[in-house]
Amino acid sequence: MIRASIVGASGYAGGELLRILLDHPQVQVAQATSRAHLGEYVYQVHPNLRKRTQLKFSDPAALEPVEALFLALPHGQAQHNIEAYAALAGKIVDLSADFRLRDPEAYRQWYGQPHAAPNWLSKFVYGLPELHRRELAAADYVSGVGCNATAANLALLPLVQADLIAVGSPVIVEIKVGSAESGADGNPGSHHPERANVIRTFSAFGHRHTAEVIQELGLRDVTLTMTSVDLVRGVLATAHAIVKPGVALKDLWQAYRPLAAENPFLRVVREQRGIYRVPEPKILAGSNYADLGFDLDESSGHVVSMCAIDNLMKGAAGTAVQCLNLMLGLDEMTGLGFAGLHPI
Amino acid sequence: MIRASIVGASGYAGGELLRILLDHPQVQVAQATSRAHLGEYVYQVHPNLRKRTQLKFSDPAALEPVEALFLALPHGQAQHNIEAYAALAGKIVDLSADFRLRDPEAYRQWYGQPHAAPNWLSKFVYGLPELHRRELAAADYVSGVGCNATAANLALLPLVQADLIAVGSPVIVEIKVGSAESGADGNPGSHHPERANVIRTFSAFGHRHTAEVIQELGLRDVTLTMTSVDLVRGVLATAHAIVKPGVALKDLWQAYRPLAAENPFLRVVREQRGIYRVPEPKILAGSNYADLGFDLDESSGHVVSMCAIDNLMKGAAGTAVQCLNLMLGLDEMTGLGFAGLHPI
Amino acid sequence: MIRASIVGASGYAGGELLRILLDHPQVQVAQATSRAHLGEYVYQVHPNLRKRTQLKFSDPAALEPVEALFLALPHGQAQHNIEAYAALAGKIVDLSADFRLRDPEAYRQWYGQPHAAPNWLSKFVYGLPELHRRELAAADYVSGVGCNATAANLALLPLVQADLIAVGSPVIVEIKVGSAESGADGNPGSHHPERANVIRTFSAFGHRHTAEVIQELGLRDVTLTMTSVDLVRGVLATAHAIVKPGVALKDLWQAYRPLAAENPFLRVVREQRGIYRVPEPKILAGSNYADLGFDLDESSGHVVSMCAIDNLMKGAAGTAVQCLNLMLGLDEMTGLGFAGLHPI
Amino acid sequence: MIRASIVGASGYAGGELLRILLDHPQVQVAQATSRAHLGEYVYQVHPNLRKRTQLKFSDPAALEPVEALFLALPHGQAQHNIEAYAALAGKIVDLSADFRLRDPEAYRQWYGQPHAAPNWLSKFVYGLPELHRRELAAADYVSGVGCNATAANLALLPLVQADLIAVGSPVIVEIKVGSAESGADGNPGSHHPERANVIRTFSAFGHRHTAEVIQELGLRDVTLTMTSVDLVRGVLATAHAIVKPGVALKDLWQAYRPLAAENPFLRVVREQRGIYRVPEPKILAGSNYADLGFDLDESSGHVVSMCAIDNLMKGAAGTAVQCLNLMLGLDEMTGLGFAGLHPI
Repeated sequence: MIRASIVGASGYAGGELLRILLDHPQVQVAQATSRAHLGEYVYQVHPNLRKRTQLKFSDPAALEPVEALFLALPHGQAQHNIEAYAALAGKIVDLSADFRLRDPEAYRQWYGQPHAAPNWLSKFVYGLPELHRRELAAADYVSGVGCNATAANLALLPLVQADLIAVGSPVIVEIKVGSAESGADGNPGSHHPERANVIRTFSAFGHRHTAEVIQELGLRDVTLTMTSVDLVRGVLATAHAIVKPGVALKDLWQAYRPLAAENPFLRVVREQRGIYRVPEPKILAGSNYADLGFDLDESSGHVVSMCAIDNLMKGAAGTAVQCLNLMLGLDEMTGLGFAGLHPI
Repeated sequence: MIRASIVGASGYAGGELLRILLDHPQVQVAQATSRAHLGEYVYQVHPNLRKRTQLKFSDPAALEPVEALFLALPHGQAQHNIEAYAALAGKIVDLSADFRLRDPEAYRQWYGQPHAAPNWLSKFVYGLPELHRRELAAADYVSGVGCNATAANLALLPLVQADLIAVGSPVIVEIKVGSAESGADGNPGSHHPERANVIRTFSAFGHRHTAEVIQELGLRDVTLTMTSVDLVRGVLATAHAIVKPGVALKDLWQAYRPLAAENPFLRVVREQRGIYRVPEPKILAGSNYADLGFDLDESSGHVVSMCAIDNLMKGAAGTAVQCLNLMLGLDEMTGLGFAGLHPI
Repeated sequence: MIRASIVGASGYAGGELLRILLDHPQVQVAQATSRAHLGEYVYQVHPNLRKRTQLKFSDPAALEPVEALFLALPHGQAQHNIEAYAALAGKIVDLSADFRLRDPEAYRQWYGQPHAAPNWLSKFVYGLPELHRRELAAADYVSGVGCNATAANLALLPLVQADLIAVGSPVIVEIKVGSAESGADGNPGSHHPERANVIRTFSAFGHRHTAEVIQELGLRDVTLTMTSVDLVRGVLATAHAIVKPGVALKDLWQAYRPLAAENPFLRVVREQRGIYRVPEPKILAGSNYADLGFDLDESSGHVVSMCAIDNLMKGAAGTAVQCLNLMLGLDEMTGLGFAGLHPI
Repeated sequence: MIRASIVGASGYAGGELLRILLDHPQVQVAQATSRAHLGEYVYQVHPNLRKRTQLKFSDPAALEPVEALFLALPHGQAQHNIEAYAALAGKIVDLSADFRLRDPEAYRQWYGQPHAAPNWLSKFVYGLPELHRRELAAADYVSGVGCNATAANLALLPLVQADLIAVGSPVIVEIKVGSAESGADGNPGSHHPERANVIRTFSAFGHRHTAEVIQELGLRDVTLTMTSVDLVRGVLATAHAIVKPGVALKDLWQAYRPLAAENPFLRVVREQRGIYRVPEPKILAGSNYADLGFDLDESSGHVVSMCAIDNLMKGAAGTAVQCLNLMLGLDEMTGLGFAGLHPI
C-alpha cells in the first residue's frame, strides 16, 4: 500500500481525489489538508463521504512524509512551496496550473506574472497519459491538466496524430462548461438565480488553457471560446478545423478508432440510431472516460471533432490518479472503474 | 401621473418593482436607490431593463418627496427610518417583514428582537388584497407580504372563509421554493454546484412567515415546512388539514369558485385532462396570479389545498403594486397584466 | 380593431401568438384552430391563458374570413393550402419554413422535396423587420423566420452591413438551443431524464436554417453547428469569422451601435462589470429583444459576434407580430412590450 | 461466480442492474433481454456501458437457465409468467409491483384487478433488507420495492421500531421525486419543455406505494402525497406525525443512531453547520445509501422525519442487488460500493 496525502482537499478536485483514493486498492490516504476546514470531518464538506471515512481535515503546516502527494491548491500557490513538498514525498502530482507549461516565458505571458520556481518546470511531466504515457511511468513530478485544455487536446488529438489538419487552418474550439469548473468558492455570477439557465459566452478569446493546447499539440492558430451552460459537471469541446485536401470520412475513422483502442479511457461515439449518437458529458459524471465524436463536410473539408469529459474526473482528479497509477507501475484504470450513470 | 420611488432597488423585489412600474400607465418612477450600486444604470444590475430606462441608482440619503414610496430593504431596516420615509411620501408600501405583524410581542418572538417602532405597527394594513381590499383602499401605510405566507394564506383561505377545517385539526403546509427566495446576495448554499438539483428540507419548523398565517387566518396549530427545489422563481404550498365531518368535494368547489370569481388574480386549477391539472409555479413566472387547487379524501376527511405563485410577483412586488393600485383608487390589475409564459 | 385567426394554435408558436394577440390593443382574435384539441379551451393546452380568454380551439375546416391569418402549422403543410388561406384573408403571416426561401430549387435542396406552390414563393417577404422593414410595410404575404436563422442573421448583420468580413472568410456559427425549439410534440430524446443536463451537438453541418442565412445575408461559406443545452426557451448564436485587414474594435462599435439605435428590438450588450456583460437568452424569455455582443482579437482578426433571443418570440411569434404591425402601419412594438424577467 | 440474467433490461432499472452486475465480483451477466431493442448492443441504450461490455439485448423467449433471474418488466407482466421464470432459475428478484403485497385482496384494491398468480404471493419476501434481512438470507423469491414506498418506509422505520408515534396520529408523507421515476418511456408530461422547472403535486392521495407502507410498517392512517420536481434521479420523503407524550429529541437520536449502525446503507444526516445539514438526494445519485434526518417540535410533539434515496438504486436496482447478495450469503454491500458524487 502506498501512503498518499492531499493538500487542499476541501475544494472540488480535492474532494474527488478523496472519493477515488479512499476506494483505491493500492493507496492509503494519510492526510487531507484544509486551512479553512481544519478539524472538521471531510464528510462535512464532501457529504458523499459520510460513513466512508472518519478522516478529518488536517493542518497544511503539519504535513507528514508520504510516498505520494497530491497538490490541489488554488493556482499560484504550489510553486512557492515546491521545495518543501518535494522534501516530503518522492512522487508529486500537482493539479493546479503551476507546473503545466514548460516555458517560463509562456507562463508569464498567460498567467501575468513571472513563475516563482522556473527551474522546476522542466522536472514536471504534463499529466495527460494519452500524450505522455511512457514519460509518466518514469516521472516523479507530474502536473495536472486544465479541464478545458483536456477536452480540446483530446478532441484534436486524433486529427493531429494522423496529421489531417490543413496547413494554416485556424482551429476554433467552442467549449461548453458546467458550473463546477469555477471551483468550490462562490462568486456573484455563480449565485443560483443568476447562474441557472444560462448560456453565457464568458470568454471569446484568450482562455489560459489555450497555452496547454499550443504546447501539447504544437498548434499555433487555436482559439478556445468558452460558454457556460446549465450543468454542474461536464465539458463538451466542439473543435472546428479544415482538413487537408482529399481527407474523407474513412480517414477520420482510421484516426479515431486506433486511438480509442490504445487508450482505455477513450471511446468513439458516433451512432446512427438511438438517443446517444454523439459524445455527451451528462453520462460521464464520476467516470474517467473521454468520449470522442466527429463529423466531416467532405465538400468543404470542414471537420468538427468533439470531446466530452467530466471536468472533475478526466479533466482533473481522475487523470491525476491515472497518472499516479502509471508512476507506480499499476494498471492505469485502478480505482477509476466507475462507469457513469444513465439516466442522470 | 403618480410619482413613486423605490428604496433598495438593486435587490430582486426592487428590480421587479422597477420592471412593473416603468410600464405602469399611472406611475412615474422618480428615484431608485441603492447604496451598493450608486451611480450605475439600473439595467447594469437588472439586465432586462436595458433600453427601457436610462435611470441610475441614486443615493438613499438624497431621496426626494414623492407621492408613493416603495421600501424594498432587507428586513430590520425600514423600522428605524419610518418617520423619515413618512415625511417624504404620503403613501408607503414596505415590502420587508418590518410592518407585517400587528403585535409587537409577536414581532419580538418571531424575529428575535424588539421592534424599533412599535407604535407604527397599528398604522399599517397587511398588504394582501384578497384579505384586506377595503382597508387597503383607505390606507396610507401598507406592509408587504411574506412570499411563503402568501402561498400558505391563499391555499388555506377558501377553507377558512367557508369554515371547513375541523376544530382542532393541525394544519401542515409543505412549501417548495425556488432559489430567488433567498434574495440577490449569494451564500455558500446558493453556489450553483451546491444549489442545483437540490431537494433540501431546510426548515422543518418555525419559519418566520408562520406568524403571518397565524395572524391573518386566525389558525393556531399551523406548521410551515420549507423545501428548496431546483427552480429560480416560484413557490408551491401544499396544505394538509382535516375537514369537518360531512364536508364533501362539492363543498370545496363552493368554497374555491366564488373566491376566484371575486378576486381577479385568483384562479382555480383542477383539470381532469391535459398536462396542467394542478397549480404550477413554473407557468406563473412574471405573472401576478395565484393558482389554487384542492383534493379531498372523503373517507378520511383529509383535504389537500395547493397554491402556486411567483414569489417575486404575487409573493412580493406584484402584490405591492396591486396594493398601491387600490390605495390610489385604480383598477387593481393596472400594470400587472402579464399572462406568464408557456412553455418555460 | 383587426380580426385575426391562428391556424395551428396548439403548438408552442401558436400559443405564444395567442398570448401576444389576446393583449394586442389593435387585434381581436377570431379563431384558433387545432385538430388535435378541437373543442377544448385554449387554456387547457396553454395554461398561462386561464382566466384570460374563454376561446376554444376550432376546426381548421371551419375557418372564417378575417383580415389577418397566422399560420403556425408544422413545416410542409401550409404550401398545400395557400390558395385557400389567401381566399380567407388579405394578410397572411406563415410561421413555418414553407415560404422562407425565394428559390424553389433551394427549397428542394434543403427540404428534400419539391415545393408544392413554387409560384407563391416570390409573393412572400422574408419576415425579419431588421432586414426588410420597408417591404414588410407593403406586403400581404410574409414568411416567418427560422429561430436559429434569426440568431445567426442578427449576429452577423452588423458585420455584413458594415462589410467587415474578410473576403473568403468561412463563417462558423455555433448555436446553443433550449428544448422548446423542438416543438410541443415529444420524442424519445426530449424525455426529461434524457434531455435534462445535456450538452448535445446534435448537428454539426447542414441545418436547414443555414439556407436562410445564405439567402438573407448573401454569405456563401457559412456553417450552423447546433448544440442542445438545458434550458427551455432561448438561443445563443456565437459566430466566428475573420475581419478585413485593419478592422479594429472601434469599427465594430460603429457597426453595432447604429443598428441598435435604428431597430427598437436590437440591443448591444458589452459591459465591463456586473454579471451580465454579454448577451444571454435567459433574461429574454417572453421578450422580443435580440441582444448583440462582440469581441475581436485584433492581432488575428478573429471576430466573435453573439446574438441571444427567445426562440418563440424574436425567433417566431414575436417577430411574426412585429411583421403584422408593420403590415398594418402600426408601431412595430405594439403588443410586444414585455421586458423579460430578472432573475429567471 | 453466479450466472444471472436480467429480463426487461432496456428500462432504467434494468440498465442500473446491468451497470452494477457487470462490475459485481461474484456475478456474471448471462443475458439481458429486451423485445424492443433485440439485437442491439446494450450500450446503445445505456450509453454509460460503452466499452464496458459487448453484450447485446437478447430475446425474452430465448432465456436460458441461470442461477439468478432479475425481472425488471413493467408492472403486471411477471405474474403471468412466474411459473416459467421459476423453471429457469432458483433465485428470482422481481423489481415490479407484482409480488410486493402479501394479500391478494390488497393487490386487487390498489392495482385495480385480481392478481394472476395469487398463490405465489406468499412465496415472496418483500425485498427491503432493513426490514427482512434474515428472511432474505433464506429466500428464493424476493420482490423489489417501490421507490417511494422505500423512502417512506425508511423515513418512518426509526419511529415505528422505537414505537414513538402517538396512537391514532395520522402520518403524512410528502414525497418529492425526480423524472426518472416515471420510467424510460416518455409521455406528454415528460416532454422536457413541460417537465423542466416543475413543482407539480400530481397525486394528493392514493398512490399505490401506500400499500407497501401499510403492509410493512403496520400503519393504518398514512398518506403519500407526490410532487414532481426538477431533478432526474432522487426521492426525498418528508414524513409528518405526532409522537407520544414526553418524547424528546434525545429519544429520536436513540431511535435513529442504532438503526444506522446496524444497517450499512443507512446514514443519519443532522448537522449544525455546513451546506449539507439534512438528507439530500442529489448527492446520492448512483449510490445505495438512504440518508435519514429528523426534527421535533417538542412543544407540539410534531415530528418530521426525512429519507433521501436514489430511486433507481436504493429504490430499485441497488436494493435488488443487496437482496441477491443476502440470498447468496455474500456481504450485502458487494458491488454496491459507489460513494456518490459531490458536487453534482
